[in-house]
Amino acid sequence: MGAPDVQLPGVGPEAGEEPLFDPTLLTALDWTPVKYMKNGVTSANPGQGLLVRPLCKADYDRGFLQLLAQLTKVGDISREKFEERFDTMRRCGGHYYVTVIEDLTCGKIIASATLACELKFIRDCAKRGRLEDVVVSDEYRGRQLGKLIVTTINLLAKKAGCYKLGLDCKDEMKAFYSSLGYVSEKGNDNTMIIRF
Amino acid sequence: MGAPDVQLPGVGPEAGEEPLFDPTLLTALDWTPVKYMKNGVTSANPGQGLLVRPLCKADYDRGFLQLLAQLTKVGDISREKFEERFDTMRRCGGHYYVTVIEDLTCGKIIASATLACELKFIRDCAKRGRLEDVVVSDEYRGRQLGKLIVTTINLLAKKAGCYKLGLDCKDEMKAFYSSLGYVSEKGNDNTMIIRF
Repeated sequence: MGAPDVQLPGVGPEAGEEPLFDPTLLTALDWTPVKYMKNGVTSANPGQGLLVRPLCKADYDRGFLQLLAQLTKVGDISREKFEERFDTMRRCGGHYYVTVIEDLTCGKIIASATLACELKFIRDCAKRGRLEDVVVSDEYRGRQLGKLIVTTINLLAKKAGCYKLGLDCKDEMKAFYSSLGYVSEKGNDNTMIIRF
Repeated sequence: MGAPDVQLPGVGPEAGEEPLFDPTLLTALDWTPVKYMKNGVTSANPGQGLLVRPLCKADYDRGFLQLLAQLTKVGDISREKFEERFDTMRRCGGHYYVTVIEDLTCGKIIASATLACELKFIRDCAKRGRLEDVVVSDEYRGRQLGKLIVTTINLLAKKAGCYKLGLDCKDEMKAFYSSLGYVSEKGNDNTMIIRF
């Protein structure tokens, strides 16, 4: 008999490293139509020491929620609550593609964006995608990681079968998203909301 | 022993009339803050011969898809495909609230709107709602059914725990949705999309 496996309880690969969605979706993306990335950067080749991959539970300990807090209010989410939300998302297959960039040199999540999908009856039971919760850590700005994570979601939405991909956009971000292929459809580009 | 139940195969209550979501959510809505409906109309009291309720599979035979075709392209959706989509939506509990108005006098679906929810990590694992695919049949316009079905979704979103409810809005519909409580957030009200 060999030596017993040594693992911290509850944080071993099986418990914590299982991805939210199939990671081969990311490695199989076709980046050839994308012309604006410098130095041949893609999701499969994001730069030295970086990894683009699906969110996993162990990212709770890699600063994922602290990263989101750079974007908006997050609150004090316990590990149990985080894992419960993760499990609910994973059970709804084909709906949630939370995609992160990890800096492997320090084991931190430094960027994240989500493709959230909605199933419809219209358009032959279509799937609609939305780009949500895009954030790049302050310390990593200016390294085209925003373009990298958003373009990854754009390509993923197409691969996942979405007929369109949308986002709600602040005025000051319109130029950025225009540069990545997003357009305003004149006469049909108003976001309206009720807050509760 | 009593007489045997007589049911058409596959279209009896158990097969076809099971709702997409819990119908008591609709009957329990609190309409007291809503001041703009005439004649005391609410989701529980929609008018003679009308019923506001969750979508069910049997609505395939009550013109649900033909109604959606008044809104946009629907395509030729088979019963099997419709039921498969319905089942997928129902399995993702807490995500899809397709709500319809039936005219009981003719057994037709005459209005529909969807509350589609997205789960998040931000804001203490919040739920975001979206108003989607709102349609009232041509023949039933001018009877405040648009206000009825949209307000039903507004109240339902609050009850379902959404922190906000949004929609992508055409210019000519802004006044209508403003009258039902939706606002544009200046500087943050642009919808941008990529079509595939």
